[in-house]
Amino acid sequence: MKELVERIRREGKALGNGILKVDGFVNHQVDAVLMDACGREFARRFAGVGATKVLTAEISGIAPALTTALHLGLPVVYARKTKPITMPDTVLLTVAPSHTKGVITELIVSPEYLGSGERVLIIDDFLASGATIMGLVRLAQTAGATIVGIGTLIEKSFEGGRAALAPLGVLVESLAVIKSMEGDKIVFDE
Amino acid sequence: MKELVERIRREGKALGNGILKVDGFVNHQVDAVLMDACGREFARRFAGVGATKVLTAEISGIAPALTTALHLGLPVVYARKTKPITMPDTVLLTVAPSHTKGVITELIVSPEYLGSGERVLIIDDFLASGATIMGLVRLAQTAGATIVGIGTLIEKSFEGGRAALAPLGVLVESLAVIKSMEGDKIVFDE
Repeated sequence: MKELVERIRREGKALGNGILKVDGFVNHQVDAVLMDACGREFARRFAGVGATKVLTAEISGIAPALTTALHLGLPVVYARKTKPITMPDTVLLTVAPSHTKGVITELIVSPEYLGSGERVLIIDDFLASGATIMGLVRLAQTAGATIVGIGTLIEKSFEGGRAALAPLGVLVESLAVIKSMEGDKIVFDE
Repeated sequence: MKELVERIRREGKALGNGILKVDGFVNHQVDAVLMDACGREFARRFAGVGATKVLTAEISGIAPALTTALHLGLPVVYARKTKPITMPDTVLLTVAPSHTKGVITELIVSPEYLGSGERVLIIDDFLASGATIMGLVRLAQTAGATIVGIGTLIEKSFEGGRAALAPLGVLVESLAVIKSMEGDKIVFDE
């Protein structure tokens, strides 16, 4: 998606160790109009998969997942990283390593909002190693739901996430694909 | 806002100790279409305040803040609760007690995205004691920005937040006002 690629080219910063800083429009400050355009584009690409729910992980997946859900007219569920007191005692929980934070995080979904029969479209900000997304996949599968597609804003194709997701056999779409980051140079796959 | 009040009436649950569960459409599963309508309503109510930026706190403020920002055509900044590695070494940080979690949380904003001259509209999910929102106010004021309005989806007017915010002298708007919760009964101020 040209608009997102151009924005990363202009404002994204490679910080080394595969870390891409997009805090000015995705991760801390969010360009709402750009996120809405990304949501519209995801809705277009996944129009045919018959999704009944969008699933993401807090925190930075929320913005693109929300705008995608809006354009598809679907609810969105975000997996929590800590269990709030409003959640039932028994939950769906998995763990996923966070590449950028170097820690293991929990992903928690209430069984109230993810059940068998759901057709789940996963949306997140980044596809890197695919570990967070595979965590969301496990939660959905444990709930008896079916994964029907996976969309991410930015794919770092040199980190192997697409290969990790391939066995799922679903449509995987990224709006900007980065094939290498060396020093401060960001190279897109266009 | 009738649509939100009706939804709380139908699906909200008073869990005791002033805790209102709205996990099915605001806090865990999000009704994207309803959030968009709330954002449109905030944009209408704050059309005249001359905001240049929307400010909220992760996590559950993100959805209404994003849709408000979208309808106002503004960027939105969400205060982080932990400092990510992409943030500069020196940040704006304050602490706020979380009423529902019984802990002190940090609210962190990068000075890159909140500066003097900004006119800040604060949007959050709940107005209870006002502690989180006053934390956001301190961050904005420390940055030299001006607060121009405060909007929340749900105000629990029996927790005194509106009085805490009154000295700011800005427009405070809530889309649903609950004046009491006793047992499982939710009473709206209409």
